[in-house]
Amino acid sequence: MSDPILLRDDHGGIATLTLNAPASLNALSDAMLAALKAEFARLAGDGTIRAIVLKGAGKAFCAGHDLKEMQAGRQSPDRGRAYFADLFARCAEVMQLIPALPQPVIAEVQGIATAAGCQLVATCDMAVAAEGTRFGVNGVNIGLFCSTPMVALSRNVPRKVAFEMLTTGQFIDATRAAEVGLVNRVVPAEALGAETRALAETVAQKLTAAVKIGKRAFYDQIEMTRAAAYDHAAAVMVENMLWRDTEEGISAFLEKRRPDWS
Amino acid sequence: MSDPILLRDDHGGIATLTLNAPASLNALSDAMLAALKAEFARLAGDGTIRAIVLKGAGKAFCAGHDLKEMQAGRQSPDRGRAYFADLFARCAEVMQLIPALPQPVIAEVQGIATAAGCQLVATCDMAVAAEGTRFGVNGVNIGLFCSTPMVALSRNVPRKVAFEMLTTGQFIDATRAAEVGLVNRVVPAEALGAETRALAETVAQKLTAAVKIGKRAFYDQIEMTRAAAYDHAAAVMVENMLWRDTEEGISAFLEKRRPDWS
Amino acid sequence: MSDPILLRDDHGGIATLTLNAPASLNALSDAMLAALKAEFARLAGDGTIRAIVLKGAGKAFCAGHDLKEMQAGRQSPDRGRAYFADLFARCAEVMQLIPALPQPVIAEVQGIATAAGCQLVATCDMAVAAEGTRFGVNGVNIGLFCSTPMVALSRNVPRKVAFEMLTTGQFIDATRAAEVGLVNRVVPAEALGAETRALAETVAQKLTAAVKIGKRAFYDQIEMTRAAAYDHAAAVMVENMLWRDTEEGISAFLEKRRPDWS
Repeated sequence: MSDPILLRDDHGGIATLTLNAPASLNALSDAMLAALKAEFARLAGDGTIRAIVLKGAGKAFCAGHDLKEMQAGRQSPDRGRAYFADLFARCAEVMQLIPALPQPVIAEVQGIATAAGCQLVATCDMAVAAEGTRFGVNGVNIGLFCSTPMVALSRNVPRKVAFEMLTTGQFIDATRAAEVGLVNRVVPAEALGAETRALAETVAQKLTAAVKIGKRAFYDQIEMTRAAAYDHAAAVMVENMLWRDTEEGISAFLEKRRPDWS
Repeated sequence: MSDPILLRDDHGGIATLTLNAPASLNALSDAMLAALKAEFARLAGDGTIRAIVLKGAGKAFCAGHDLKEMQAGRQSPDRGRAYFADLFARCAEVMQLIPALPQPVIAEVQGIATAAGCQLVATCDMAVAAEGTRFGVNGVNIGLFCSTPMVALSRNVPRKVAFEMLTTGQFIDATRAAEVGLVNRVVPAEALGAETRALAETVAQKLTAAVKIGKRAFYDQIEMTRAAAYDHAAAVMVENMLWRDTEEGISAFLEKRRPDWS
Repeated sequence: MSDPILLRDDHGGIATLTLNAPASLNALSDAMLAALKAEFARLAGDGTIRAIVLKGAGKAFCAGHDLKEMQAGRQSPDRGRAYFADLFARCAEVMQLIPALPQPVIAEVQGIATAAGCQLVATCDMAVAAEGTRFGVNGVNIGLFCSTPMVALSRNVPRKVAFEMLTTGQFIDATRAAEVGLVNRVVPAEALGAETRALAETVAQKLTAAVKIGKRAFYDQIEMTRAAAYDHAAAVMVENMLWRDTEEGISAFLEKRRPDWS
């Protein structure tokens, strides 16, 4: 039997998902998308997991869609129309499961992150990149504009930066990716796992319920007008204040001791 | 009698407001919020003031809400629900008075700006920070996610930067704050007052009415679609052009002389 | 006969438009706006042009509106109200033709770009600036707040940066413009033409239809909620996939050969 296309390893409340199709540079094939969807569904209901790391096996993080599989989809009488519509809908659904998950999701990025692979980085809540990683939305080079990756990219980086990447198909390096907001930080390649882990552990040590409602409120309020966002966020804070663990957290802070959240 | 919790000093058309509760790191207590609301109401109608500087007394700019007061609010039969709802509504109202003021408001930031104190920096129209200042939305550390500060923060800095600050509770320094757009500039601590004052004076020397309609239009148009924003901004420019002082300003420019706006 | 106010030179599928009123620092006069509108209309239907460069003759890129002409407009019984309303509507229309064009538009900027000239830079899809170029939205200095330029500027750069430029009227230099996202890159003055040309050629070599639908989708989706943006972008990708040239582009990539898009 072959290895699973998506690996999951839980340790200390942190789930590490590894895209495991290195021969295809971890392409987002039908199988990979299905595996991600299923795993995200499991994680959404898994109260033992407080942070998620998403990484790729082999020399790339993810090179986007599986082009061979897409070309094969053209064999149907409609030349693939129904298959492509379904494929892009499934991919967009998987992408949008990430902000919908209760746990923060951190991309651990090395090698290349291209097209829908770059979209995956942009979609994760946070990202740590190894020095030397290259990022591109380069579908335009083969005549397929990265329209869906653009949705995530243009909500992460300034407009002119996004437009240039999309229409030139050129790569940016990890340092530039950090400058423009596509990743949180760049670390030496040999430190990538440890640095990503450290970030995940920092988040995992917080009160889980607070991170959960905070993450949800983050994505909810960002698409509202400021006034509506304040109404929403204020209501979230009232609920948050009424939790026993938050009362304990504030008391502990005022008493200069560690909170008892056990 | 004790010192007022909020000081105001007017000089040369510039009002300097000083949060004056250094023992609590200028916490946004009920009293402080009430004082800010009242003073902003006065400033909104004060035609002699052309710019506002907001600073903090003592070693911090502002450390956010008054946690002791919040914990005391739990004594009521509803465990504080009504009080907290009222508190966050009052705080959001005070924050939103800042963009609604006719005068530009500049935060003069030193020491720390945390939680709702960081929100205050993000909410001001501009901000100057002393080297060494630290910024954080660190409520998550005590189990209270900074949901309302997030509204202002996420409209100032890139998404992944905001998400990291909110879920890790970690500080960023002043240099990083300038890089990501949370403050306009960083200056040596000993130059903070003079540099902030210079910025305020620059703005105060402009035609007051133009700054006023410009500031209002800034926040109005930024939440519109581009097409609606252009319609709105064009209407504003027509009104602006019809003022006598603007006619004089343009004439003076064309004649290479100073405008007579007396 | 005088030189045309707007020059057009086509070469290798790239149209270079030159604002040609150097004596007025290429002011956006009634005549210039009319010439731009007419030329953009021609370019919108010109299938031979795959990228557009917009530059200015003489020592400035563009210094904004024609102030002498505007002052002359005050002679009518309504003191210019109808003229100004029409002027700002025409200017906003011309600006919005740029994102509506099927071809990417690159600003080639040198000298100064001020007020509506800075707006033009912000409005172009991409921008390359010569070292030493200065950018400002400095209408506030003469009592005319740059309300319409603000629409474009505030969609390019962080809020506090835009607010400072608008209310202080101060210039930023090219390096700062690149840092904040107003231009894509800064190059030595002597390399400006070649570097801008190289960027235009890179874009012009892509599949024209893909760049066209991609550019349109870019500006459409950026004003939508994320969910609506994904629905829209997914539909665009399905259409894109069904083109013969895209099928060929993907096949060529998989077969490690150049696509036959002739």
